Amino acid sequence: MKIITLEWKNNKIKLIDQTKLPHKLEYLYIDKAKDLWQAIKLLKVRGAPALGAAGALGVYLGIKDAETGSGVIFARELDKASRYIASSRPTARNLFWGIERVRQVAKDNKDNSPATIKKLILEEALRVIASDMDSCRKIGQYGSDLIKDNDAVLTICNAGILATIDYGTALGVLYRAKAEGKRIKVFACETRPLLQGSRLTAWELKNKGIDVTVICDNMAATLMQQGKVNKVIAGADRIAANGDTANKIGTYSLAVLSNYHKIPFYIAAPASTFDLRAASGRGIRIEERGRREISELLFRKEIAPIGVKVFNPAFDVTPNNLISAIVTDKGIIRQPYTKNIKRLINRRGE
Amino acid sequence: MKIITLEWKNNKIKLIDQTKLPHKLEYLYIDKAKDLWQAIKLLKVRGAPALGAAGALGVYLGIKDAETGSGVIFARELDKASRYIASSRPTARNLFWGIERVRQVAKDNKDNSPATIKKLILEEALRVIASDMDSCRKIGQYGSDLIKDNDAVLTICNAGILATIDYGTALGVLYRAKAEGKRIKVFACETRPLLQGSRLTAWELKNKGIDVTVICDNMAATLMQQGKVNKVIAGADRIAANGDTANKIGTYSLAVLSNYHKIPFYIAAPASTFDLRAASGRGIRIEERGRREISELLFRKEIAPIGVKVFNPAFDVTPNNLISAIVTDKGIIRQPYTKNIKRLINRRGE
Repeated sequence: MKIITLEWKNNKIKLIDQTKLPHKLEYLYIDKAKDLWQAIKLLKVRGAPALGAAGALGVYLGIKDAETGSGVIFARELDKASRYIASSRPTARNLFWGIERVRQVAKDNKDNSPATIKKLILEEALRVIASDMDSCRKIGQYGSDLIKDNDAVLTICNAGILATIDYGTALGVLYRAKAEGKRIKVFACETRPLLQGSRLTAWELKNKGIDVTVICDNMAATLMQQGKVNKVIAGADRIAANGDTANKIGTYSLAVLSNYHKIPFYIAAPASTFDLRAASGRGIRIEERGRREISELLFRKEIAPIGVKVFNPAFDVTPNNLISAIVTDKGIIRQPYTKNIKRLINRRGE
Repeated sequence: MKIITLEWKNNKIKLIDQTKLPHKLEYLYIDKAKDLWQAIKLLKVRGAPALGAAGALGVYLGIKDAETGSGVIFARELDKASRYIASSRPTARNLFWGIERVRQVAKDNKDNSPATIKKLILEEALRVIASDMDSCRKIGQYGSDLIKDNDAVLTICNAGILATIDYGTALGVLYRAKAEGKRIKVFACETRPLLQGSRLTAWELKNKGIDVTVICDNMAATLMQQGKVNKVIAGADRIAANGDTANKIGTYSLAVLSNYHKIPFYIAAPASTFDLRAASGRGIRIEERGRREISELLFRKEIAPIGVKVFNPAFDVTPNNLISAIVTDKGIIRQPYTKNIKRLINRRGE
């Protein structure tokens, strides 16, 4: 089954409603910025690279019906539309990167008519989609060198097809390794609270015919202790200039556990995930989400006492010293990170 | 609210059905061995020390209606009843210890009539209950020395009132610290797959007026990284002669993370949890449980693709080098463990 996470079709964003998986493969057709904002907030579409495309198209949805009479008013509408989409989620770098890309096009062409700028914004957003597909293939090519025949690889959250337009980042590396004939086994951390690992990663790996086993997040250490996994690979939401990496909560835990068990710990992400303005992980804002994600299971049934306090950060930061390599669409980056990231990735994340 | 996890009342075991918490405080009244076996298997009653009492009373339920005409036939029935209750769960040492205690009484009095032996078995089972209550108080007294004013303590699963007859082991230490006027804050790992942390620990700590915050298991490392917890304390299901400790899955992970973050990691358990016949953790059998605990949430709703493989060990083993101290009812044990355990705990776990 061919899956496309997000595409532009008949003047609408067509995207998989990921909150319905693995039960139902259901699509949403979105042509209003506020519906896209909701879809991002509620994680119907998620994954840093996919959010890059969503951000770029989101700006277009926000200005497509704007008045084209006055350049000044249009510029104000564009600002408003950009800020609005940017407010949906704070951590994933790619969301802001996608928005900046279309804003840059508007800026570079500000002497054109608003009607022309609208068209240029849409074209740029479609280029963001195309370049994401290209980046994922390259990440897969570079990263598959790190995967050997008979590897057992642990992953967290979903850094696959469903986190990108197609193919994925961390899972793209595994798809490529498989295509090259390597036999691999994957363990997927279920990834509480929202279970992207068991719902999404297990679903897409099964679809692709890859041997996948779901574990609860607290079982990862035991897998390592028993020698049942020999590599860890995860995606990223934002990577600082020194390689410190923000990703789904639980990633840092896996990095420490990998370090203790002497297992390589890899991050896979496109250049657009790097935020060179953040010198280290301390500069990355971490989203804290609502209590019900923890105290109820997918909003169905209470599992904690009513009113109990919860702590629900959506991401954590893994310091660069715990990362064995970062696989990007520009090549594999290793220690020393600050120097090597600077050499390979420019300020625009390209 | 005074809670008693399990008691012997009107010739029945009265116990809290822990699968109903935190929604409902509901009691089961059990007078048949097979109903007790089910209750243990389905974790309606759980926690190593509580299983010690359940094991002892379970043997009594199994033989209370046995023929008393023949000593030989009665001995055979006693064997059968013991093996049956022992088959309910494999890891918790205390279950076997409770069974052995009543069997030893039968052995020591084998020249008495079966009717007398029945009576002696019940009396011994009631002594197991009384001694558990006493052990927990002592663990609390010894352990509270490790807790300072303003500590923030992380715990996993439930090693509290609900894991014992009352008071608890790891949580008993905290109850005692609070009674001594120390201000403490507790973080409870929700403890997938069965959520004993969010369902049981959060419930009983809230009842006792202790400040408790629930986290998903994969958030523990982040709490440590941010300096939000400065101690970890957990219970134990079985402790080997060298201090290697089997406890709820996820405990080993916390031990490695504590080690990395230089946070003390404590185990609290009664002498009856020690299994001196196991030289190390390698000798401990780990229960693997069913797939639906992971692939569905408390059997309510599928959260993983149908038929996906899962790995569902119920416990893990923490090597002694990662344990800062073991708090027991005989005192606090530290490195070197093999020597110090031998000095304090005898082969009978007394």
